[in-house]
Amino acid sequence: MTEAYTSVGKSFQRIDGVDKVTGSAKFATDLSFANMLHARLLRSPHAHAVVRHIDTSDAEKLNGVKAFATIFEVPKVIQYWFFLRNEKKKQQMFLCDNIVRFIGDPILAIAATDQEILENALALVKVEYEPLKAIHDPLDALKETGVTIHKQGNIAFKVKKEFGNINAGFETADVIVENTYHTSKQKHASIEPIGTCVADFQSNGRLTLYSSTQLPHWSQHYLAEIHGLSLNAVRVIKPYTGGAFGGRCGLIHGLEAMCSVLSRKTLRPVKMSFSRTEDFSATESRHPMTIRMKTGATKEGILVANEVDILSDTGAYGTHYIGVIADCLSTGVGLYKIPHYSFQGTVVYTNKSMSGALRGYGNPQMNFAQESQMDIIAQKINLDPMEFRLKNYRPAGEMDPVLNGMILSNGLEECLKKGAASSGWKEKRVRPPGHGPLKKGIGLSIMLHGTGAARALPDPGSATIMIHSDGTACLMTAAADEGQGSRTVLAQVASQILGIDFKDIRVSDTDTDITPLDCGTHGSRQAYCGGLAVRDAAVQAREKILVHAGNILKTKSNQLRIESGIIFDAFNLDNKISMKDLMQKIQIQDMGICAQIIGSASGIAPAMPGYYGAVFAEVEVNIRTGEVKVLRLTSAYDVGKAINPELVRGQIVGGGVMGIGFALTEGLLLDKGHIVNPGFSDYRLLRACDVPPVIPIIVESNEPTGPFGAKGIGEGAMVNVASAVANAIYHAVGVRLTDLCMTSEKILGELQKH
Amino acid sequence: MTEAYTSVGKSFQRIDGVDKVTGSAKFATDLSFANMLHARLLRSPHAHAVVRHIDTSDAEKLNGVKAFATIFEVPKVIQYWFFLRNEKKKQQMFLCDNIVRFIGDPILAIAATDQEILENALALVKVEYEPLKAIHDPLDALKETGVTIHKQGNIAFKVKKEFGNINAGFETADVIVENTYHTSKQKHASIEPIGTCVADFQSNGRLTLYSSTQLPHWSQHYLAEIHGLSLNAVRVIKPYTGGAFGGRCGLIHGLEAMCSVLSRKTLRPVKMSFSRTEDFSATESRHPMTIRMKTGATKEGILVANEVDILSDTGAYGTHYIGVIADCLSTGVGLYKIPHYSFQGTVVYTNKSMSGALRGYGNPQMNFAQESQMDIIAQKINLDPMEFRLKNYRPAGEMDPVLNGMILSNGLEECLKKGAASSGWKEKRVRPPGHGPLKKGIGLSIMLHGTGAARALPDPGSATIMIHSDGTACLMTAAADEGQGSRTVLAQVASQILGIDFKDIRVSDTDTDITPLDCGTHGSRQAYCGGLAVRDAAVQAREKILVHAGNILKTKSNQLRIESGIIFDAFNLDNKISMKDLMQKIQIQDMGICAQIIGSASGIAPAMPGYYGAVFAEVEVNIRTGEVKVLRLTSAYDVGKAINPELVRGQIVGGGVMGIGFALTEGLLLDKGHIVNPGFSDYRLLRACDVPPVIPIIVESNEPTGPFGAKGIGEGAMVNVASAVANAIYHAVGVRLTDLCMTSEKILGELQKH
Repeated sequence: MTEAYTSVGKSFQRIDGVDKVTGSAKFATDLSFANMLHARLLRSPHAHAVVRHIDTSDAEKLNGVKAFATIFEVPKVIQYWFFLRNEKKKQQMFLCDNIVRFIGDPILAIAATDQEILENALALVKVEYEPLKAIHDPLDALKETGVTIHKQGNIAFKVKKEFGNINAGFETADVIVENTYHTSKQKHASIEPIGTCVADFQSNGRLTLYSSTQLPHWSQHYLAEIHGLSLNAVRVIKPYTGGAFGGRCGLIHGLEAMCSVLSRKTLRPVKMSFSRTEDFSATESRHPMTIRMKTGATKEGILVANEVDILSDTGAYGTHYIGVIADCLSTGVGLYKIPHYSFQGTVVYTNKSMSGALRGYGNPQMNFAQESQMDIIAQKINLDPMEFRLKNYRPAGEMDPVLNGMILSNGLEECLKKGAASSGWKEKRVRPPGHGPLKKGIGLSIMLHGTGAARALPDPGSATIMIHSDGTACLMTAAADEGQGSRTVLAQVASQILGIDFKDIRVSDTDTDITPLDCGTHGSRQAYCGGLAVRDAAVQAREKILVHAGNILKTKSNQLRIESGIIFDAFNLDNKISMKDLMQKIQIQDMGICAQIIGSASGIAPAMPGYYGAVFAEVEVNIRTGEVKVLRLTSAYDVGKAINPELVRGQIVGGGVMGIGFALTEGLLLDKGHIVNPGFSDYRLLRACDVPPVIPIIVESNEPTGPFGAKGIGEGAMVNVASAVANAIYHAVGVRLTDLCMTSEKILGELQKH
Repeated sequence: MTEAYTSVGKSFQRIDGVDKVTGSAKFATDLSFANMLHARLLRSPHAHAVVRHIDTSDAEKLNGVKAFATIFEVPKVIQYWFFLRNEKKKQQMFLCDNIVRFIGDPILAIAATDQEILENALALVKVEYEPLKAIHDPLDALKETGVTIHKQGNIAFKVKKEFGNINAGFETADVIVENTYHTSKQKHASIEPIGTCVADFQSNGRLTLYSSTQLPHWSQHYLAEIHGLSLNAVRVIKPYTGGAFGGRCGLIHGLEAMCSVLSRKTLRPVKMSFSRTEDFSATESRHPMTIRMKTGATKEGILVANEVDILSDTGAYGTHYIGVIADCLSTGVGLYKIPHYSFQGTVVYTNKSMSGALRGYGNPQMNFAQESQMDIIAQKINLDPMEFRLKNYRPAGEMDPVLNGMILSNGLEECLKKGAASSGWKEKRVRPPGHGPLKKGIGLSIMLHGTGAARALPDPGSATIMIHSDGTACLMTAAADEGQGSRTVLAQVASQILGIDFKDIRVSDTDTDITPLDCGTHGSRQAYCGGLAVRDAAVQAREKILVHAGNILKTKSNQLRIESGIIFDAFNLDNKISMKDLMQKIQIQDMGICAQIIGSASGIAPAMPGYYGAVFAEVEVNIRTGEVKVLRLTSAYDVGKAINPELVRGQIVGGGVMGIGFALTEGLLLDKGHIVNPGFSDYRLLRACDVPPVIPIIVESNEPTGPFGAKGIGEGAMVNVASAVANAIYHAVGVRLTDLCMTSEKILGELQKH
């Protein structure tokens, strides 16, 4: 890119920065409305039970108790928006019955005038359960145990895909390694607990819902179905949100549906807000997986075959289980040129809290297994792990067999080389681990993640831009910003194209009433899919501006340029007008024009480009305690083009921290379906003092389909951290951990086996 | 119009009906926000004074008092949006000084935590005034009295226009009549008092203002100037509003500016709400005018000359004084083919509460004078007043000399004929007035009023329509609905063009953040200007729909039709798809499309078409008491096309009632600048029992530039009521009242002169 940009590629301060530091940013929990009721859920103490009877008679007598809603009447949403595609599939989305399937599964919701009354009322509800045998182990779900979690059985989904001929592939292999990997039930652990909404159902039959969802438009769709309302009778507004990571990627179990039914019954605003314990024990988590992987390569280090068999545990209900397995497939197959690839996935129900979307969406699990395998093979054939990757990764120009499209940009080689240089890979790789109990090692891993979900999901982006008479602009977008900074990035795209100063672009609230269907935040899609929509809307607005400017400057609009708020004739630089003067003239001053400048664009992105990255983890293992300390993480990612480098670095550093957590400490622990660490005191999120230096390196491969060459980053930065850490531990102490998270206990166990 | 419409021309229930009857409609006074402060104004007890010093020290000590704003720092807005046109004119809009110019002129505003503290604080403020001599009579403003209300003098505006040659005109006249007319200081008297807003200035530098303004975008503009903010930092949201009639047509004196400054100082939401007394004594009223008119006609009843000299009293400040005088000119000259017309207008300042925009905008005053003159002349030459009008009115096909455009539609003849038939004009005109003290009479008058203000003001309309995946739609418009029902009408236009059921069109809130510059509610413009924008936006959306439908139905999109939600091939009726199925398919189902349907349009209307009307008033005058009872009003108006006939009838009936008030009872009474009837107990608004049957007759002339042929109605229906009543009184008892309002006292006085 030789063009000098004024807004793209600049680390502008995020537009929500001032709001957040001054406290004027309103989060869902800050919302309060006149006449508002408060609601809470009564949750099942049983992992699996029939609810025979709910007796609310005592609770009803309490002054201030206003309404009840039970699972007998309010459906659960048990699929995601992919199932909105037609009427038949839609019916599979909703389940209304009298069975609870995990500890914490909602049974009823109560709305009351204050929290104390609510608590008293919940204590007065009598529920008659008929406990059922529960399944806790996903392997049991596959057996004929007589326990059926869902009518259609305990297998939620099965997929089998083969590329090439897997048996023939293994015949050409000189080295074959086969291992089984386990991954944990990681939680999103966002700063703001998952699960707050205010539902306001009015007597005119319209529902307004304030919810910290990643997918405002899909919440609108689900809720319209649940209430039998038209889409224009349901308005979803997303307030500021304190992190999401996939945890707000759909209708949060029991929240929006229950809350809006209570509001419908009372015609008052109703607020429901989950506690941290409820967030941890009853909202979605990462899918725990068991991944058996058999990988073959030639002695020259060329990968020839990979056989993958995944058992994924989606818990009691599953919204994202198909997509998560599909991402294991696409990211696993897409990353390496392996001619023979067999992929099998089985998703089962268990009586545990649900699994769902979590940053990486199947990829971190798959990557942990596959990148561990690669390290093992490289070691077997005595090849530097980096050289091994460079030999086998699938570069630009190759076809991706899963997505069935050509890879147009791939900066992986640059990621590896820059990451190696920055991390001191070569030197540290040959350095002895050290004397005494503290052993140092360095490991690497690579990754691919898709940007957005073009053609794999209904995945539209949309944007509208209007220019005011003072030359400032407003960008309307439903691109839900959960804290990642996407609204800032989108404003930069608009600013760049319109030649309007970045600070003069305001970005709207996220509100389904004012923006057409937009797929919100998922799949690392905002800079790319949102950016494309904003780009196109800005181009449309720009064209309209230039037509007016051409009339005023008496020149052809196609020879006009806009820079820093000045529209000028490229062939006669003195022939110019400021954007402000132009807008003033055409909107107000010349009463024969009074034209408005609006640009709007929407639709799906032309591709789902992969973004790539290499992580180099340097660790120190205490062989006496099994304790692992990550000393330094060097994370190099090809983001196509960093529209706001500082925000990209923020994503990389944040992903690194979450990745170390996934590697070493994070995971919900269950005892017969009971989550024993539902909060920050027991769920070991990395503390500030646990976080090593994370060195972010940005590589720009210029994705041709992207806005200014950009593609994704959000999820990717955590995907391959655990595998890099596992590979580093092996390098330090020679033990191979295959079970996440890699606690001191497990490491010590492995060390003692040696 | 032979086409059968499904939505246009139907009296659908208004879309805000349910909200209003169930109480879910939120008016400005209903708004309450967390942490909100309340504010009130301290107002001048002097009609004219210098404010030497304001001592707030005692008030500051009160617990709960949070901020002060004085006229020393907060500018008054003393022009209207016409002055936004360039930087020089803009500077004339704002005045910041230490002079108060009428009793009730604000001096300072206080914000406090509750109303009681506020009241105590106001009582503790000490103001040092230097009283100045005041001008109460507009004639004094013309004299050299040494009193100067504004720096530039006491004459706010002067205009002189001549068409033809006035002296030559009078030379050809056989009959000349000359009279002087006076009109009252009528008040809007809307159900919701004028003057409530909540300003919310946030620490991020953005101001959100909830205000029941007719012109949300112009409030946005004024406030941006006052606060030195960019337009995209000021958001104006208009809640439901209980009537406006022009009284909310601009920045309400002392309200939005003061309130937003208090919010800026405290960074808390601040609510200010005028009492009814404040509304009546310190917000704008109709301009009282003295109109000298000399009219000449031939003995055959052909008008040849009219000379008009108006003295208009704009009070202490004047926002709309130029436009109001301009409307006297255009409506007076436009209505009749008078070859020689001389028009002179002078607007003066006096130390009274301001005059401003009020339904009719100068036309009711002018019409009262001119239509009285016409009656007098018709009588002099012994011609039926209706015949006289039919001979002289300016029909379609003629050029309008003021607007300099051809009249494309004029249904006045039909109005006269239908009105005459319905009212029993012919019979009642020759019926003796009756024996005893009660004398009956019938009078008529006609009118012309312009629709909108194309090319005379910056007058853009705008609309955006988006279609949801279930085939319902959302219409975004800033067309401020003050209760007239314009949002309903605009939804009907969208429904008609898109073939989407009326109830499936939702209309957005009025919010400057989501809609481009729109001129709001003024000049009877919404059905016409708003309707044109909605029509164009809907046509654009429709074209996009038909392209997709053509692809799916494998036919040319230009042979497709939409009716009742079904898109079909006009040449193969079985080849069809429902709007719902189409939208579902292109938005969600076919993941390779995911298209959105958005249409947006904006700009000015191509014309400012006149709408016409004839009113027949039947009265009964008690010659002993002077009391006048209107027995029946027959009001026939040519609205081009009634998009919602019931709403048009509502406007006609409401206008009739307001017109009778203007004729007989309404007017602020002043004693040395002090308004002595600032409320409903003393200001005589018509009570339900005073209201006669008002018979609305709709005439449709099909204005070719209008949406489905529509033009305006809102203001017109009150314009010519007073003149019709005056003419009826003359018919009943032979006395000619030239002074509004025509109280029993004045009538008795005239009767006694006889």
